[in-house]
Amino acid sequence: MANIAKKVSWSSRAEESGVAGERTPLFNGSEQPRLSRQLSGGGSVFQIGRLSTVDLEEEITSDEDSQRGRPKEIPHNEKLLSLKYESLDYDNIENQLFLEEERRMSYMGFRCLEISRWVVCGLIGFLTGLIACFIDIAVEELAGIKYQVVKQNIEKFTEVGGLSISLILWAVLNSSIVMLGAIIVAFFEPIAAGSGIPQIKCYLNGVKIPRVVRLKTLVVKVCGVICSVVGGLAVGKEGPMIHSGAVVAAGVSQGRSTSLKRDFKIFEYFRRDTEKRDFVSAGAAAGVSAAFGAPVGGVLFALEEGASFWNQMLTWRIFFASMISTFTLNFFLSIYHKNPGDLSNPGLINFGRFESDSVAYNLYEIPLFIMMGAIGGLLGALFNLLNYWLTIFRIRYVHRPCLQVMEAMLVAAVTATVSFTMIYFSNDCQPLGPEHTEEYPLQLFCADGEYNSMATAFFNTPERSVRSLFHNQPGTYNPLTLGLFTLTYFFLACWTYGLAVSAGVFIPSLLIGAAWGRLFGILLASITSSGSIWADPGKYALIGAAAQLGGIVRMTLSLTVIMVEATGNVTYGLPIMLVLMTAKIVGDYFVEGLYDIHIKLQSVPFLHLEAPATSHWLTAREVMGSPVTCLNRIEKVGTIVDILSNTSTNHNGFPVVVQVTGSDEPAKLCGLILRSQLIVLLKHKVFVELARSRLTQRKLQLKDFRDAYPRFPPIQSIHVSQDERECMMDLTEFMNATPYTVPQETSLPRVFKLFRALGLRHLVVVDDENRVVGLVTRKDLARYHLGKHGLEELQVAQT
Amino acid sequence: MANIAKKVSWSSRAEESGVAGERTPLFNGSEQPRLSRQLSGGGSVFQIGRLSTVDLEEEITSDEDSQRGRPKEIPHNEKLLSLKYESLDYDNIENQLFLEEERRMSYMGFRCLEISRWVVCGLIGFLTGLIACFIDIAVEELAGIKYQVVKQNIEKFTEVGGLSISLILWAVLNSSIVMLGAIIVAFFEPIAAGSGIPQIKCYLNGVKIPRVVRLKTLVVKVCGVICSVVGGLAVGKEGPMIHSGAVVAAGVSQGRSTSLKRDFKIFEYFRRDTEKRDFVSAGAAAGVSAAFGAPVGGVLFALEEGASFWNQMLTWRIFFASMISTFTLNFFLSIYHKNPGDLSNPGLINFGRFESDSVAYNLYEIPLFIMMGAIGGLLGALFNLLNYWLTIFRIRYVHRPCLQVMEAMLVAAVTATVSFTMIYFSNDCQPLGPEHTEEYPLQLFCADGEYNSMATAFFNTPERSVRSLFHNQPGTYNPLTLGLFTLTYFFLACWTYGLAVSAGVFIPSLLIGAAWGRLFGILLASITSSGSIWADPGKYALIGAAAQLGGIVRMTLSLTVIMVEATGNVTYGLPIMLVLMTAKIVGDYFVEGLYDIHIKLQSVPFLHLEAPATSHWLTAREVMGSPVTCLNRIEKVGTIVDILSNTSTNHNGFPVVVQVTGSDEPAKLCGLILRSQLIVLLKHKVFVELARSRLTQRKLQLKDFRDAYPRFPPIQSIHVSQDERECMMDLTEFMNATPYTVPQETSLPRVFKLFRALGLRHLVVVDDENRVVGLVTRKDLARYHLGKHGLEELQVAQT
Repeated sequence: MANIAKKVSWSSRAEESGVAGERTPLFNGSEQPRLSRQLSGGGSVFQIGRLSTVDLEEEITSDEDSQRGRPKEIPHNEKLLSLKYESLDYDNIENQLFLEEERRMSYMGFRCLEISRWVVCGLIGFLTGLIACFIDIAVEELAGIKYQVVKQNIEKFTEVGGLSISLILWAVLNSSIVMLGAIIVAFFEPIAAGSGIPQIKCYLNGVKIPRVVRLKTLVVKVCGVICSVVGGLAVGKEGPMIHSGAVVAAGVSQGRSTSLKRDFKIFEYFRRDTEKRDFVSAGAAAGVSAAFGAPVGGVLFALEEGASFWNQMLTWRIFFASMISTFTLNFFLSIYHKNPGDLSNPGLINFGRFESDSVAYNLYEIPLFIMMGAIGGLLGALFNLLNYWLTIFRIRYVHRPCLQVMEAMLVAAVTATVSFTMIYFSNDCQPLGPEHTEEYPLQLFCADGEYNSMATAFFNTPERSVRSLFHNQPGTYNPLTLGLFTLTYFFLACWTYGLAVSAGVFIPSLLIGAAWGRLFGILLASITSSGSIWADPGKYALIGAAAQLGGIVRMTLSLTVIMVEATGNVTYGLPIMLVLMTAKIVGDYFVEGLYDIHIKLQSVPFLHLEAPATSHWLTAREVMGSPVTCLNRIEKVGTIVDILSNTSTNHNGFPVVVQVTGSDEPAKLCGLILRSQLIVLLKHKVFVELARSRLTQRKLQLKDFRDAYPRFPPIQSIHVSQDERECMMDLTEFMNATPYTVPQETSLPRVFKLFRALGLRHLVVVDDENRVVGLVTRKDLARYHLGKHGLEELQVAQT
Repeated sequence: MANIAKKVSWSSRAEESGVAGERTPLFNGSEQPRLSRQLSGGGSVFQIGRLSTVDLEEEITSDEDSQRGRPKEIPHNEKLLSLKYESLDYDNIENQLFLEEERRMSYMGFRCLEISRWVVCGLIGFLTGLIACFIDIAVEELAGIKYQVVKQNIEKFTEVGGLSISLILWAVLNSSIVMLGAIIVAFFEPIAAGSGIPQIKCYLNGVKIPRVVRLKTLVVKVCGVICSVVGGLAVGKEGPMIHSGAVVAAGVSQGRSTSLKRDFKIFEYFRRDTEKRDFVSAGAAAGVSAAFGAPVGGVLFALEEGASFWNQMLTWRIFFASMISTFTLNFFLSIYHKNPGDLSNPGLINFGRFESDSVAYNLYEIPLFIMMGAIGGLLGALFNLLNYWLTIFRIRYVHRPCLQVMEAMLVAAVTATVSFTMIYFSNDCQPLGPEHTEEYPLQLFCADGEYNSMATAFFNTPERSVRSLFHNQPGTYNPLTLGLFTLTYFFLACWTYGLAVSAGVFIPSLLIGAAWGRLFGILLASITSSGSIWADPGKYALIGAAAQLGGIVRMTLSLTVIMVEATGNVTYGLPIMLVLMTAKIVGDYFVEGLYDIHIKLQSVPFLHLEAPATSHWLTAREVMGSPVTCLNRIEKVGTIVDILSNTSTNHNGFPVVVQVTGSDEPAKLCGLILRSQLIVLLKHKVFVELARSRLTQRKLQLKDFRDAYPRFPPIQSIHVSQDERECMMDLTEFMNATPYTVPQETSLPRVFKLFRALGLRHLVVVDDENRVVGLVTRKDLARYHLGKHGLEELQVAQT
C-alpha cells in the first residue's frame, strides 16, 4: 500500500516541466481569464510530439513509415501506462443534433436500422467464413506441395545416403517462405504481427489501437499467417482469424473503405464508435467461430472481452454472425473436400469426434485431471515467463525490421533442423494402418509397411498432429517420442511467439499439451496394469491440451466452451472446466496469461473487470485529473484553437460550463464536448458571426460528423485566420448536455463500475453545487492494480 | 403517441383523493415545515392497505391465508402496472459503515469471500442436481406403477370386453394424483403454480416477487410437479427445475432459513439483495442445466434474463454451478440406472443422440426449415392467444382454491379420456421391435407381436414420447396418428398451462412440435418420392419441436443453445437458430411470448432491455416522480416515523438533503437512504440524544442490517414513544452519500440505460445546482412501452 504514496504521475511532474511558462502564449487573445486558470492542468504535461492523440488513425506519412517498424516507442515496462492510447467513444453523444435525428426517426426507421444491423452481421459472418476457408485451402495446398517435395527428396536420399541435403532443402524452403511472411509484416504492417488477440482484447475493452482494423492489416495478416504455417513454424492459424474477423466487421459496417477511397453511401448511421465496436465484437466472435467451429464459444469470447457492454439484441446478432461464419466455412470446405453437404468441418481446427462410450471418464479420474491442470498451469507459467523475457530482449535489441525478418528466418531454419534431427534419430517405427490416416507417412529407416511415428508429429501441419494425438490407436506413439517432442516443441513454440509474423499460439499450446497428456496417459496405463478404462491415451491428450492451453492463455469461460464445442461432447464439460480452472489458479500464482503479459508490455490502459478489491479507500477526488480544461457555452474561436493546439495537454474531452454573470462563483457544468466535434465545427466554421451574416448557410448535420469519422483531421491542418479567431462559437447544440457525473466522495469501485458498465470515456467529477472539479478518464482508473504488495499505482508514460 | 397524453397515473389522481386533508396530521410535531412541502408527493397516493411494500416477505397471518388463494387481487389487465411489486436493491449501499468494513478487509479477506462464493455455487449446483434427480426418479417410479396397473387392467378387459372400466380406472387414478398436487399448490403456496419461469424472470429482472424464493415454495413445487407429471397431465418437469434451482440458491447463499428458524452463522456477508440475486441467477442456471443437460444454455439463460448486470467472475461461478448440477444429476442417475460411470443422462430431458451422418441436412432444406419456423410461430401465437383468453377467464371466474383444484381434476380426467379414446379408435398397429424401445407397449386390438402406435405417444411420459418421435424408425407412425395427436395435445396442453399445479410448458411444446414436424417430414417424403435425404422424419421432428417451442416461449439465444446442447450436435445450430428466429418474428407479429403474457397479466413492472426506440423525446423531467419526500441529514424521529407510516405514499427511498442555514434556497442533495435502513435505525433507537446520554451504547454495525434482512419489520411494529419522537437522528453515517444522479434534461433512453446497467432502484433527478427535483424508479420506466400505435403509457394500479 505504500507504493500508492509515490505518485510519479501527472500532477507532481507538472511543476517541473514548466507548464506555467507555456500558459501565457496559449491564452493570448482570451477575453475570459477566469477560464484560463482551469486550463492546461495536471493532466498530461509530457511532450507527446507528433503522436496527436485524437488522430491515431491518420495516414502515416513517408518519413514516419521508416520509423514505424521500430518498437522502440513501445515502453517495455509493465509498470507504465502509455498516454498514446485513447478510449473509444462508446457512450452516445446525446447532443441536440442526435436527439433531433432520433426524434425524427419513425418506428419503421428503427426497424430498418435493426434489419440492416442483422444484414451487416450476416455479411461479417459470411466474409469471415470465406477468409477462413481461403486460409485453410491455401495452407493445405501449399503445405501439401512442400511436404511432397521434401518427402520425395528424403526418400531419394534415404536410399543413396546424404540426407543432409534433404535437411538443407527443408530448412531453406521453410526459411524462404517464412521470410516472405516476415517481410510483409515487419515492413508493411507491424500491427499484424502475432495472433492479434491482445489487440482485439484491447479494442473490445474500449481502447483505440491505431491501425488495428484497417484493410491493409487484414491483407498482411492473411498472407502472413499462410506463410508462417506453410513455413513450418510452431504456430497456428486460429488466433489470426479472430483479428481478421474484427477487421472484416469494422470494414463492412462502415459501408466504405478509407484505404480504397470508396464510399458506398450505406450504413452511414453506423459511423461512430458505439456501433463500430459492437460490430467488431461480432467480427471477433465470427473469427472464433470459424477458427474452432465454436459459435457459442465465439459469443462468449466477445462477451468476456467486451464484458461490460452487454446488450441482448447485440448478443443475438453476434451469435448470428458466428453461426453464419462456421456454416460458410463448413459449406465451402465440404465442396473443397468434394463431399458437398457433409458439414463436418465446422472450424479450422477439428478435434475429431470423441464418442462418449469409447472415452468415458470416471469420478475417480477427476483428481488426476485436476493434477494435469496443475501441471498445465506450471508449464504454462514457465512458457509465459520465458516468452516474457524473450519479449523484453526483443524490444531492446531486435527492433529493426530487417533484424526481425532475420530472426524469423532463423527460427524457421532451426525448427526444420530440430524436426529433422528428431525424426532422424527416432527409431519409433509403427505399422502403416490400412486406412492411411497419415497424410505424409515418412518411411525413412523403417521397414516397408511401417512409418516413422516422430514424423507424424513433426512432418505435418500442427492441426493434423493434434488430431492424431487425440485419436490414434493406443500404442501409436512410444513414450520417448512424446517426451522429446514435448520438450522441443515447447521451446520452439515459446521462441516463435512474438516473432514478426502473423501466427497464433492456440495450436502449439494444444499440441504441447496433447503430447504430454498422451504421455501421461501412457504412463498411467503402464503403472496400473489392470482396467481398460486407462487404456485410451487420447482422453488424456485432450485433457493435457486443455491444461496447457489454459495455463498459457487463461481464458476460462469462453475457452471451456470452445473446447467443449470443438470436442463435440458435452460430457467432457466438467473435467475440462476443472482443468482450466486449476491451470488458471496455478498459473496466475506465478505470472499472468500470455495475452495479458503482452498487453502490459505495451502499456495499454486496459480496464479489468472490477476495481481492485482493496481500493475502497480511494475516492474520485484522489483519482481524478484536475484542474480541468473547460470551455464556455459560447466560446471564442481563438481560445478553442489554442486549447486544441496545445500539444502538452492534448485533452480529448472538455466540460462545457456556464458562468453566472456578474458572480464570482465557479462555473456550473452544463455539458461535455469532444475534440473531434470541435475539429469538425472549426472545419465547417460554425461561428456565431458567420451564421448571422450568411443566413443561407447550411446547418451542420450529424452527417458532417459521420463523414469525418474516424480519421478526424488534426488541428494543425485546419486554418483559422486572425479575424476568425475573434469570432465566437456556440457549443449548445453540439455538446452532450447530460454527461454522467459523480460527486467527489464517490469511492473508486463505484466510479469504476459506472465507467465500465456504460463504456465511458470521460466522467465529470462535480462538487455539491454541480461545479466541475475534475475529470476521470480511462488512465485514471487503469493506473491502479493489485500487485504482490497490495494496491499499486502505475506511472503514466509519454509514449 | 397520442396515448401518452391521457395520464391517468399518479399526479392527476392525487387531487381527487384528498391528499391535502391527510397531510396535516402527518406533520404534526414537525419543526421544519420547509421540508414538509416536499413530502407526500405525486408518487403513490392510493391506499395500499395491508400490503406494506417494504415488507413483502412478511409472515402471512392466518386471516390473510384464507384470502391468499384468490387471485382477485391480481389486476387482470395488461395495461396496468401494479404498485405492489418493489425493486431489489441491487446497487450497493455505499454508506460509511459499508466503506469502513470494506476498507478494514484485507486482500486475503476478499479472497476468502471469493472462495466462499465458489463454494456456495458448488453447493447450489449439487443440491439442484439432487433435486432434479429426486424428481426424475420419483416420476419414473410412480409413473411406472401407474402405467403397469392401467396396462394390466386394459389387457384384462381387452379380452373380456368392458374397457370402459379401464377408462374409469385411468381417469380416477389421474384425477386423484393431480388433485393432490393441486391441493398443495392452491391451498398452501399459490406462487408455486405453473412453471415458475415468469417469476424467476421477474426476480432476475430486479423485481421483488413475494414468497418466490421460500423453502415452502420449493417443497410444494417439487411435490406438485411430481403429482402433475405422474397424473398424466400434458406438462413437463423441466420448467419447475429452474424455479427450484433459484430457491435452493436463495436458501444456501444466506446460510440460514427463516422458515426453519435456523441460522448457521455463515455467509453473513451475502445477506443483501446484490449478492442474493447473483446467487439466484446461478441457481436458475443450474436448474436449466439440470433440466436440459445444457450448462452453457443455463448460463445464457441467466445472462439473458438478468442481462444488464454482467460480471465476469459471476458468470464463471454460474457456469460452475451449472456444470456441477448436470454432473450431479448425471452421476446419480447413472447409479440409479445401474450403470455407474455411464454419464449419458446430463438432463431430465434427453433428446438422444443425433448422428451427423444419419440426419445431415442440405442447403436446400433450409428454406423448408424456415417455413417450419413460420408454422411454429403461427401455432405458437395461436397457443398463446388461447391461453391468454383462458387466463383472463380463470382470473375472473376460477379464483377460489377449491374451484382451481376441481378444474385441475377435470383436466386430468379429460386428458385420460381423450387419450383413451384416441388409443381406442386408432388402428395404427406397428410390429414390436426386437430391442423393445417402448416402455409400456399396449397391444390392445393389435395382432400379437404388434403394438398400438398411438399409445406410444399418449400412454407414456412426455419425455419418452418426444424421444420416440425424434428417433423411431421411419414408418413407426402413420400420418393420421400424428395429425390427431398434434390436434388433441395442442388443446390439452393449452388448457393445462395456467392450472393451479406446478408444471412446465417446455415438454408439451416440444411434443406438439415434434409431432407435426414428423408429420411434415413424412408428407415431404411422400411428395418427393426420390432421394433418401428426405427419408428421416426424425430430423423434421427436431426442427418442428424447436419451431413450436420458439413460437410459444420466444427465448432465442439461450433456447438455441439449450436445443443445440440437448441435441448434442453443433451442426444443427444454424437451422435451429434460423427456425427459432423465424418463429419469434412471426409469433411476435401476433402476440407476445407465453411468459411475457403472464408477466403482463400480473402487472409486474418488468424492465425490458432497452427503452422503447421512439422515446427520445421524453426526458427525465417528464418521467420522474415529483415532488419527492426528502429527509434532512439530521432529522427529527417523529418526522421519520410519520413519513414511514404514511400508507398513502409508502416510499422506499428518500433523498437526504442539506439545508443552507439562513438561506431560502432549496436544499442540496447529499445522500439517499432506504426505508429498510430507517426501520433498523428506529428499531435500535440510534438517536443523537441517546448516544450522548448512553456513551457505552454499542455502535450500530452492518451486521444489524444483515440480521434484519430480508424480512424487515413493518413500521407499525416499531414503538416510538412521544419523548423519542422529539429526538433527532443523524443519517450521515448510514445514508448512501454518493447516489447516482441525472440532470432533468436527460433523455429517457439515457436514464433507462443507466438505471438498467447498474440495476438501480432509485435514481435522483437534480437540477443544475444539485437540488433534488424528482426521483425515477422502476415504475416510471416500465410505464412506457411500444404498442401498436407507437409509444404507450401504462396506468399504475393499486394492487
